Parts: sequence; structure tokens; C-alpha cells
Amino acid sequence: MKGKVYLVGAGPGDPELLTLKALRLLRTADAVLHDDLVTPEILKLIPSKAQVHNVGKRCGKKHIVQEEINFLMIALADSGLSVIRLKSGDPLIFGRAGEEIEALRRADIGYEIVPGVTSALAAAAGAQIPLTHRRLSSALVFMTAHQASGNDAANWRKLAGSGATLVIYMPGQNYSEVATKLKAAGLTGQTPCAIISRASTPQQRTHRTTIAELVEAPRLAAPTLLVVGEVVRLADPRLPAERFGGPFLSAVNETAFPAVLVADSVGGADFRTNTNQDPLA
Amino acid sequence: MKGKVYLVGAGPGDPELLTLKALRLLRTADAVLHDDLVTPEILKLIPSKAQVHNVGKRCGKKHIVQEEINFLMIALADSGLSVIRLKSGDPLIFGRAGEEIEALRRADIGYEIVPGVTSALAAAAGAQIPLTHRRLSSALVFMTAHQASGNDAANWRKLAGSGATLVIYMPGQNYSEVATKLKAAGLTGQTPCAIISRASTPQQRTHRTTIAELVEAPRLAAPTLLVVGEVVRLADPRLPAERFGGPFLSAVNETAFPAVLVADSVGGADFRTNTNQDPLA
Repeated sequence: MKGKVYLVGAGPGDPELLTLKALRLLRTADAVLHDDLVTPEILKLIPSKAQVHNVGKRCGKKHIVQEEINFLMIALADSGLSVIRLKSGDPLIFGRAGEEIEALRRADIGYEIVPGVTSALAAAAGAQIPLTHRRLSSALVFMTAHQASGNDAANWRKLAGSGATLVIYMPGQNYSEVATKLKAAGLTGQTPCAIISRASTPQQRTHRTTIAELVEAPRLAAPTLLVVGEVVRLADPRLPAERFGGPFLSAVNETAFPAVLVADSVGGADFRTNTNQDPLA
Repeated sequence: MKGKVYLVGAGPGDPELLTLKALRLLRTADAVLHDDLVTPEILKLIPSKAQVHNVGKRCGKKHIVQEEINFLMIALADSGLSVIRLKSGDPLIFGRAGEEIEALRRADIGYEIVPGVTSALAAAAGAQIPLTHRRLSSALVFMTAHQASGNDAANWRKLAGSGATLVIYMPGQNYSEVATKLKAAGLTGQTPCAIISRASTPQQRTHRTTIAELVEAPRLAAPTLLVVGEVVRLADPRLPAERFGGPFLSAVNETAFPAVLVADSVGGADFRTNTNQDPLA
């Protein structure tokens, strides 16, 4: 019998920002294929019996291509294993899940997508930036700094010049180029922005600045996000120009994580109906 | 001693899409102020000792205003309680968290923001729509159908006409008006779109159509989202024009939710450092 593939969002880095469903699936996985950006603390949650494959394309294994990831994922599921394709953040945002889904369909492998907390949300939470605001911004754009020429560049200008809050994923270290693009889209140099590095982890750092002064901002460690827009004015006023993040688990007056209640309350019979039925069957 | 307020994302509806952190905080709350859209299955996770206040503005209590929510939240925290402000989805997207944060700062109440899975991500996961795609869409826009006139309307056209995937929150039932706005922004009638109702819950329903035919689509139960863009062509091919969602917990070959491992692995000493220290102190 064929196995199944779960495309699972690992969230932004803090293991506590995994969903209950992601944790449940991870704990029962036979094989896990993960990106470089999934933090070691989350990888520790994988049971020791499971195969773990780092299929990240950033560090080290630069030459693994999407087709190889698809091939491995399908081969493992085809041999009957329950496979987790673990992607940092949410699987459907900037993660090439579309191509993996197409490959799974062609191979007739069952799959399910489990959403996760995308890193923009964790970055905004850490810096206390409301991403939308009744008076300041009624839309939110997720984009990357890298765009092809032609139509893409024109569209980038429309998005950046729309008055929406912008979250630029993977802004790179060439802040001068990003600032030039933002100004070309009509944003003034006084528009506030914030670079957030390693959102939600103990290494989180935030630097607030403006588009005009972005070029002088410190190059914070990847992964970073750049948040641009008037809402950045509402960021934590206690936030220095650059600050270190908190610990993974922040202050709560509690005795222990009430884990036993998870099974009682969430995994109870009330919701666990038709568990053997594929929801798409 | 003053209490603290946690602005917590409840996720899209499925209790399994809560984060571990949200569940931990809920289980230790003294008081919970929640929106109408937080599902009953999630509210059941609140301990019976806690005060629960529905501060939703949609159904029933139409006259509760933002200032009253702020007042109640602050009064409860001021009396020493640990208060959870529980918002469906993510707290910083279309949730007026910005105003609550400003009120908390003015009142000098400590607070923390806990991100959640915003409903767009769950809707896309359920319908298997990659929100970005290397060939089809390199940006993602979250917007609402309601926009003021003037600049806002011009900006709406820029966003909608940018080639990005659009997720329209709260599209309402006037599909004709939305379709007209989308066409005015330059989108062709053949642009695919999908209405997703009650994402991630057993009542999830999806209807795929095009902008031209949107006006004839069934009015699905709120809350709904409208996803617009070429990526909708990649939605689950088995998805009928309208389909019912799966159960909350989908098929996994497992014996039980391995809850005890949560405490071992996630709440272990490795991460629980400085738990009495306010990360912003």
C-alpha cells in the first residue's frame, strides 16, 4: 500500500509556534524531508525511528534540484512510508509547494497540506507591528525582492506603490537596491521600515529605520524580512534601533505545559471522526 | 500586581491548527475575550475556572464598540488576571489589534502577541492552491472587499491589477460588485477564482469559478474568502465546483495524539530559559 505525503508548515522557528497538527504528524512520521530554515529545535521533535533528509537548497547542498526532492518524496511514499515534507513558515507561500503538488498528482500519491504560521506574522508579532490598520493600511502584500524584468517589475511597482503594508521576504543584503526600487514605486524616503532577523527565535533581532536610511542599516543574519509601511510607526516604542529577541518560551505564570490536556481536549472523540477517510476521497 | 494581556491568534477554526503556544496560554488563562469567529471547539479548551467574554461585533452584540473591548481587557489585566484576547486567524491581520495595542500601552499593561495561522493559509491548504508559484505569481495580497473611495479605490485597483494572487477577506455576498471591481482593475473575466467557506472546519466548502461567472456562484456561509489569480487553476483537480470539507482530524495512522511528548520535547529546559523575564524588559 502506498504511503501519503503531508506538506506541513513548520512555522517561523519557535517550536511552540508549530500547530498541534504539525506536531502530531511529525511524531508519527516515517520520513521527513526538510528545508534548511527549519530550526534544530523543531527537528529534535522528529522520532528517532524516522528517516530525516535535509533537502535545503541554500547551505551546503547547493546542487539538489526540485526534481530530486520530488523524486525522493515520491519514492519514499511509494514504498509505503508516511512522509512529511516540512517547510519553514507556511508551505504555500514562497515554498515551491505548487511544483511538489503537481509531481504528487502525476505520481498518484495521496497528500494533504497543513498550513503553518508564515514568518511575516511572527516577525510582526515580535516587533508589535499591526500589519493592517483601520486608518493606515487596509491591505497587506507579501513579495520578494527578486523579480524578473518586464511585467514583473511593473507589477512590483504597483504593489509597492499601493499604500499597502509590504512584507518583503528574502530581501537579501543589498538594501540599497531594495530602497531604490521602493522609491521608484513612489514611496518617500521617510516611509518607515523594519528589518526583522530570525523572527520568533532567541536570536531574533529587529532594526527600525526609514527607506532613506535603509542603506546604512546593519546586515542582520538571514533569514530576514523587511516590513515597509506607515504601520511600522506603531511598532513597539521600547524597541531600540536594534534589539535582541526573547527566549523561545516567554514569561507565563504556570507550573508546566499542560500537555496531557491536549489529548483530552483536542484529540477527543468529538473531532476524531472518520479518521480513516481521505477527506478528498 | 498587574496581569498581562496575550493577543493570541486562534487560527482558522480547526482546533488542531492552534499553535502549541496558543494552547498553553489558553489552558492557563484567567479570562478570555474572544471574537465571534472563534469556533466552539476552540472555546471548549478554555479551563472552566476562566471568565469567558464574547466581544464579537458581528452577531448579536452589535453594539459593543472597540473602546468597550479595550476597557474590559485593561480592567481585567489591571485586577491581576492573565487575559487572553483571542482572535480568529492571526491577531495582526484585519483584527484591529493595532488599536488594542495602543490602548494597552496607554494603560501601561504588559502584553505579548502570539501569531496564528491566518485563514487564507488554511483556505489555500484545503483547496490545494499554491498562493505563490514560480511561473504564475510571485506575490500575494491580502485585502478586503470594502474600501473607501478616493486613494483607497485607486490603490485597490493597483493591488488587484498587479498580477499577484489576491485573497479577499470578508468578500460579502455581493459577488457582482466584487467582480466589477476586479474587472475594473484590469483582470479578465476568465481569471479563475475560488470562494472558500469556513476553511479548515468540517463545514468547509469550496466553489471554483471565474470572475465572469462569479455572480452566479452559490452564496456560501460566512466566513468566506475569495482567492483570485492564475494559481487557482492549480487547485485540487478532484475538487468539484462546490464540495464539502473533511472532518477536523484527517486520516493519520496513529494510535493516539502523543501529547506527553509535547512537554518532553517542546517545553524542555533547553528552551524554557529566563521564563520570568519579560522579553521586552
